[in-house]
Amino acid sequence: MNAEIIAIGSELLTPFRQDTNSLFLTAQLNRLGVEVSFKTIVGDRLSDLVRVARTALSRADVVIFMGGLGPTEDDLTRECVAEVLGRPLQRHARIVEDLRARFAARGWKMAENNERQGDVIAGAEILDNKRGSAPGQFLHIDDENGNAIIILLPGPPHELTAMFEENCVERLQRLLPAKYIAIRELKIGMLGESMVDKRAAPIYKAAQGIETTILAGSPGEVQLHLRAQADSMEEAQKRVDALASLLEDEFEDAVFSSKGESLAQIVGYYLGMREATLAVAESCTGGLLAETITSIPGSSRYFLGGAVVYDNSVKITLAGVPPLLIAEHGAVSKQVAAALAEGIRAQCKSTFGIGITGIAGPGGGSQEKPVGLVFHALADGKDTEVVERTFPGDRDRIRHWATQQALDMVRRKLM
Amino acid sequence: MNAEIIAIGSELLTPFRQDTNSLFLTAQLNRLGVEVSFKTIVGDRLSDLVRVARTALSRADVVIFMGGLGPTEDDLTRECVAEVLGRPLQRHARIVEDLRARFAARGWKMAENNERQGDVIAGAEILDNKRGSAPGQFLHIDDENGNAIIILLPGPPHELTAMFEENCVERLQRLLPAKYIAIRELKIGMLGESMVDKRAAPIYKAAQGIETTILAGSPGEVQLHLRAQADSMEEAQKRVDALASLLEDEFEDAVFSSKGESLAQIVGYYLGMREATLAVAESCTGGLLAETITSIPGSSRYFLGGAVVYDNSVKITLAGVPPLLIAEHGAVSKQVAAALAEGIRAQCKSTFGIGITGIAGPGGGSQEKPVGLVFHALADGKDTEVVERTFPGDRDRIRHWATQQALDMVRRKLM
Repeated sequence: MNAEIIAIGSELLTPFRQDTNSLFLTAQLNRLGVEVSFKTIVGDRLSDLVRVARTALSRADVVIFMGGLGPTEDDLTRECVAEVLGRPLQRHARIVEDLRARFAARGWKMAENNERQGDVIAGAEILDNKRGSAPGQFLHIDDENGNAIIILLPGPPHELTAMFEENCVERLQRLLPAKYIAIRELKIGMLGESMVDKRAAPIYKAAQGIETTILAGSPGEVQLHLRAQADSMEEAQKRVDALASLLEDEFEDAVFSSKGESLAQIVGYYLGMREATLAVAESCTGGLLAETITSIPGSSRYFLGGAVVYDNSVKITLAGVPPLLIAEHGAVSKQVAAALAEGIRAQCKSTFGIGITGIAGPGGGSQEKPVGLVFHALADGKDTEVVERTFPGDRDRIRHWATQQALDMVRRKLM
Repeated sequence: MNAEIIAIGSELLTPFRQDTNSLFLTAQLNRLGVEVSFKTIVGDRLSDLVRVARTALSRADVVIFMGGLGPTEDDLTRECVAEVLGRPLQRHARIVEDLRARFAARGWKMAENNERQGDVIAGAEILDNKRGSAPGQFLHIDDENGNAIIILLPGPPHELTAMFEENCVERLQRLLPAKYIAIRELKIGMLGESMVDKRAAPIYKAAQGIETTILAGSPGEVQLHLRAQADSMEEAQKRVDALASLLEDEFEDAVFSSKGESLAQIVGYYLGMREATLAVAESCTGGLLAETITSIPGSSRYFLGGAVVYDNSVKITLAGVPPLLIAEHGAVSKQVAAALAEGIRAQCKSTFGIGITGIAGPGGGSQEKPVGLVFHALADGKDTEVVERTFPGDRDRIRHWATQQALDMVRRKLM
């Protein structure tokens, strides 16, 4: 079974907007055993739309239209699909009543053009939209003209996502041949994508019937997506789990997550379990480390705070780095990284302290200390561990690498 | 003139990857007076590719193929286009020699399949690829079969971007009717998209022949993209500038940028001009404010650093907030925001100090102090200004709103 996903809207043909719904739909369809063969993006002109719909129906078993279901004259998806199928549109009184009630609840009178949202292609099932006004439509054709599944979904991502999950998955399961598909996602820290592929390829290529995708996440994170299909869910799960185990053996403790969690989530989980707290003093990452940690809801339970020590004077005032240490070794040094970690730990009275100092570029590098050089320190009150790395890439990538490295040191400490 | 952009590669039909090259190409084509009517994404199967190419040539004047130009058996774009046009592929000795030299320079022997990259469709011009191995192709057809411009570009973004700018723009200009298109981009701070549209629509709708796009950037930033086409560049520029002036009059000092700069860049520019420095003490934004400021290269000239004061004890130690103030008014209060700004300014000896305290959620809200409530303070040593806002959205959006609000206070102070 193959699918085509069609995104409708002239704004998606400007340099400013992009269809992202299709990524969600692709993941959902793959899980049902349907591969996506084509994606098309088209504007609001009826003739273009009709042409695109005709082409899609000639080459895909499942065709999903996204967008163009609103009340304005630009919203032509209903008309287009009806025309291509040669079926009439029928206005459903129940939908129009519901719409009118929605407006009335806000004290508004409904403009007449909104009634168009009640137009349903003959033979289609109506998909309720709990998060917006435009209902979707689901059409299963199985007659002398052929066999096709056609779905009309609203464009706004939160409406589309909910409607697909609540109203389409089960309908598709009933119509599609039973497929049992299990997925797993491993995340590997602080190794490059090509290095991961080199070590993983011999393992996943030897595994029968499991599709493996290697994907570079943000710098310092490589993802391995595993997908297996079998005659029973148990068998499919057994297959991905077996491959996941082999990969975990190969990469050992470089695997930081086996269910899709981020490194900051894992670190937060470990800190919470140990009832430990963390404080950070960061220079070249400029707040990115603290921001990454605090992006996790509930992080206030284990993260006390920290200092962004950009200027040397602030390294001294807020993180208690001895001025002589900076004079002697330079701000970007093993010694200053350690002093930052120890200093911020003492200032904030946390279990652990992290210090980061480095050169994110583009300026400020030298032969001896090039752009990309970063020192990361972790202090626990007894020992202070320092890791020196030289990261590739631009300012943004170097800052992300350094943030992941620091978090990974905490993870390994707590593992 | 209209165009279709075709992205080729089975990885673009997975849930993990997305074509982004088409946004760059759309901006470039629009500047040449060409609208994009269709975008198609297709995998590596030859029959699918041929079908897509045939459809595109039947409905667009300019067809751009991206990807599938490499040496592997999956790279079929050359074969596909040649087949659809009914033209032979000719292997160019010069390209093959260049490829062989590339390999030799690295001490490698070239595998034979690489020679396929020297296959050129009869009649096509070769587009050199300075950043990769696969050359592009440019074909202008103007015969009894019709009129079309066909471009084959490599998939990797840095190769595609350079090749289009260096080898395609001028070629297209020579073939396309002369168009003079001027663009402007205004950015407006701290207003919602619908409010901006409500006030801007009467103005831009009255302006003849200027296309206006309103776009929500990150929370706290709305962009107005203006594009005018005229018989001379002078006239086109005059038109967008005139509309930009009217919009600047309407939104006054809410317009923070008129050439696309970010708010952090503008604030950095003002601080640099005044030789002023900045320090921040942030609670609910958790490092995002510092991170946003330091994402700008050269920010160490005006940003001294700051504190991420997540725990109340850290508000006291690192930013010098009096403990009694927190006890009396609560950590999320006007008074604590002001104390954070004044305290961090004193600690870091900066010209300006910013303090932020609020509730980013999802937990921690109350009837009196709901999720989204944020206090922002700016201290200059004489006065301390405090702004209270309640922002909509989730944790991530609230943190971005608060960051923009704080930066906007500095901008207004320095304007």
